[in-house]
Amino acid sequence: MAAGAALAAEKLLNMGTKIVAVGRNYAAHAKELGNAVPKEPVLFLKPTSSYVRNGGTIEIPHPLESLDHEVELAVVIGQKARDVPVKAAMDYVGGYALGLDMTAREIQSSAKSAGLPWTLAKGQDTFTPISQVLPKSMVKNPDDLELWLKVNDVLKQKGSTRDMIFKIPFLISHISSIMTLVEGDVILTGTPQGVGPVRVGDKVTAGITGLIDVHFDVQRRQKPETV
Amino acid sequence: MAAGAALAAEKLLNMGTKIVAVGRNYAAHAKELGNAVPKEPVLFLKPTSSYVRNGGTIEIPHPLESLDHEVELAVVIGQKARDVPVKAAMDYVGGYALGLDMTAREIQSSAKSAGLPWTLAKGQDTFTPISQVLPKSMVKNPDDLELWLKVNDVLKQKGSTRDMIFKIPFLISHISSIMTLVEGDVILTGTPQGVGPVRVGDKVTAGITGLIDVHFDVQRRQKPETV
Ligand SMILES: [Mg+2]
Ligand SMILES: [Mg+2]
Ligand SMILES: [Mg+2]
Repeated sequence: MAAGAALAAEKLLNMGTKIVAVGRNYAAHAKELGNAVPKEPVLFLKPTSSYVRNGGTIEIPHPLESLDHEVELAVVIGQKARDVPVKAAMDYVGGYALGLDMTAREIQSSAKSAGLPWTLAKGQDTFTPISQVLPKSMVKNPDDLELWLKVNDVLKQKGSTRDMIFKIPFLISHISSIMTLVEGDVILTGTPQGVGPVRVGDKVTAGITGLIDVHFDVQRRQKPETV
Repeated sequence: MAAGAALAAEKLLNMGTKIVAVGRNYAAHAKELGNAVPKEPVLFLKPTSSYVRNGGTIEIPHPLESLDHEVELAVVIGQKARDVPVKAAMDYVGGYALGLDMTAREIQSSAKSAGLPWTLAKGQDTFTPISQVLPKSMVKNPDDLELWLKVNDVLKQKGSTRDMIFKIPFLISHISSIMTLVEGDVILTGTPQGVGPVRVGDKVTAGITGLIDVHFDVQRRQKPETV
């Protein structure tokens, strides 16, 4: 790839201010968690402070024993987007990355039962491991990418973006009708089936077949004594 | 105030990447919505794209007839904060502002029943009207500020930050143990009782007595035909 394009794509993540994540965007995954397939996208926010870059450490906060992995295609927005028509939506893509939407499933379950937000379950530091950003030009067909994830070399998730219920142009159009997307904002497009736990000491590898791969280790989150 | 300090404070909002909002932080308000007083802060995220500055327009998206106003003290973070002890927490404050946590209450109620995130109810464009940022030096005691809000000159909310269940130093410490706060991030500290609807054509005024006041009008959100 052209070094210039790669650098420009890479800069995007530092410019963004939000991660808009889509829940239940693969029918088989909605089913594995006992959820109905949604009529419109389930959206939630993750903070950019939750990013951890390739090679880094996923931290499990006390007293949790595990976090769930959700491998997802990340769409990185290339320019300010508000009320974007579906037809023009792909013009607003700046690049793609592989993201993991790490989830404290027990916290999410209690939050769901109590009618509370998902922020604690989804938004903590290191809960969004993410790859480098691939310039858009390197990804010929984002609707036909194979996503995979292994824990300790055992394949746990493998799916195709072909199976997304809501496709990228619709997601950009829909989300931009709710909130303005700015350069560098990320849409996490949902996870295929096979989510499951990672624990202290595990090694996570994941990728988009033929394009990119990432690796992360998993450790107990350390907190200073003084807090 | 010193022009330099005011300018520096003002710049903060443009630097921030998230709004961390606290729900149910005033006992009387928790009660008016039929909620229990929480044992730990209820936290949710609003995107910075939801800001609208003083004098602007709060937009009600179709098909809603109203949004609820929640007047809140906004704490603006002045430097990167992670695992900050309660004792040191005030060192991380850069300034204060008055914020409105506009809420699509019907959407929030359905989301709560369905165990879904609050993002649609809380995160749309113009859902966070906000004042200029007051430098910290101008606010002698943030735990004793009177917040008020009027709709069409009728007083709807009046309360004191004295009645916050979780105080500012605790909130900064607690939130920073969950997610890193960066310069310009905002904590919306919750609303006193008296929340209620604003409708198209209404005028909203609000303030911190003796320090600041803001005004917003309320209009129907316009969407281009093409979307
Ligand atoms: Mg996910
Ligand atoms: Mg954000
Ligand atoms: Mg509120």
